[in-house]
Amino acid sequence: MSNCVFCKIIAGELPGAKVYEDDKILAFLDINPINYGHTLVIPKEHYETLVDLPDELLKEVILVVKKIGQAVIAELRVDGFNIGLNNGKAAGQLVDHVHFHVIPREVGDGLKHWPSKDYEEGEMDSVAEKIKQALK
Amino acid sequence: MSNCVFCKIIAGELPGAKVYEDDKILAFLDINPINYGHTLVIPKEHYETLVDLPDELLKEVILVVKKIGQAVIAELRVDGFNIGLNNGKAAGQLVDHVHFHVIPREVGDGLKHWPSKDYEEGEMDSVAEKIKQALK
Repeated sequence: MSNCVFCKIIAGELPGAKVYEDDKILAFLDINPINYGHTLVIPKEHYETLVDLPDELLKEVILVVKKIGQAVIAELRVDGFNIGLNNGKAAGQLVDHVHFHVIPREVGDGLKHWPSKDYEEGEMDSVAEKIKQALK
Repeated sequence: MSNCVFCKIIAGELPGAKVYEDDKILAFLDINPINYGHTLVIPKEHYETLVDLPDELLKEVILVVKKIGQAVIAELRVDGFNIGLNNGKAAGQLVDHVHFHVIPREVGDGLKHWPSKDYEEGEMDSVAEKIKQALK
């Protein structure tokens, strides 16, 4: 897509600190990292969200995500990593080209989980039933 | 693993609000949801982290993650979802059985991105070079 910043990085029209590239997938550093080494993994073909991404390509993308995770542990000597994906603007997706985040983590780096809620009695089963219905 | 709570849910020894199950994969509601419908997707075979999970099984798990995302949008009528995975205690992994989170999201639900940092001049390239080395 001509106005997509990630497509421009793929095409070499915008700079990007690339860490991995094959014929279908690119991985490069996020310029606004949550932690140093925060990497984005994207399919080269433009799909807006995960829901749009074909299954076969998703399977290849997730293997690169895993490889990047292993690489940041091995080479940046961090203790772990988070994988994240934001599907849609409500979820915080800022660029409309599907991308996984790999965020290196260290003990005591200060990043906190989002707070959790409680279910009212019976509510959990009714929510589960709704999701089950959609999967049928 | 005998002391793993997720293995106990798989075995039916602990309750779980299951939303999807096949011979290799289980999806069920998180009992401490970040938002209602927060779902965990796990392989039935016990692997501690994503790094331990074999590629072929990971590819099957991620397709179920995508399906759950589609289901929460369709059936819970939310605007989007986050996918998350915490690899290791430093990353906030609380149960040592690899699991993806699918978190339904609505506009204005108040959940905020983690804050980002800046790279010093030249630092981005040196971090990228390190990750590239580990991928060779």
